Amino acid sequence: MSSIFTKIINREIPAFILHEDDDHLAFLDVNPLAFGHTLVIPKVELDYIFDLPAEKLQRLIAFSQEVAKMLKMEIPCKKIGMTVIGLEVHHVHIHLIPINTINDMNFSNKKLQLNSKDAEEFVKNIKKNTKN
Amino acid sequence: MSSIFTKIINREIPAFILHEDDDHLAFLDVNPLAFGHTLVIPKVELDYIFDLPAEKLQRLIAFSQEVAKMLKMEIPCKKIGMTVIGLEVHHVHIHLIPINTINDMNFSNKKLQLNSKDAEEFVKNIKKNTKN
Repeated sequence: MSSIFTKIINREIPAFILHEDDDHLAFLDVNPLAFGHTLVIPKVELDYIFDLPAEKLQRLIAFSQEVAKMLKMEIPCKKIGMTVIGLEVHHVHIHLIPINTINDMNFSNKKLQLNSKDAEEFVKNIKKNTKN
Repeated sequence: MSSIFTKIINREIPAFILHEDDDHLAFLDVNPLAFGHTLVIPKVELDYIFDLPAEKLQRLIAFSQEVAKMLKMEIPCKKIGMTVIGLEVHHVHIHLIPINTINDMNFSNKKLQLNSKDAEEFVKNIKKNTKN
């Protein structure tokens, strides 16, 4: 069975997509720890990030760096934090989270609900910035 | 002033070093979230991971992947989690943490004290495995 992320890649499940290339996809987490919390995934369905061939992992990080720069340009925050846990969805995913304190990366915090209108506006702004 | 990590690189402060090359260093966190919790750093002193030139970030990740594989071979755990927060020490550092549950990556958990004898033994075993 396809992972939920493969369904997003195949557009079987909707998502707020920020960036995409042939091998990677970045979209907003629907239950973010902070507004702008983004998931970056490889299109290949693999469980564990360190099982990726080195060259594929490096390209995934390069793509994540592009996304982190887009987020940082749009969201006032100290840094974009990055974390990979991967115990729930068995398809490699990197969390990119706008942070101001260490606690902003605490996954036991209450998750926010992503508001569709805000998310659409955000995607539009990210895409506008990227074009310039 | 040198960062505490630059002092470790220069051997001005002792650390349990697991792996090193010309541009990177991996050593045990002295206040680990779990036994085997490791910090991977570039030798260049820079504050924010996504400010690294893309090629340097990719090499840092390739080095981290090698270290994660060493840790996974030595420590019974589901995965090696990876996180970058970077709000306290202003020298890029990647946390690699052996995890079994999401809560193992929670930085508000009480930190452990690294026992020197266990750490020495661990470093010895890691180096032995790496040679084979």
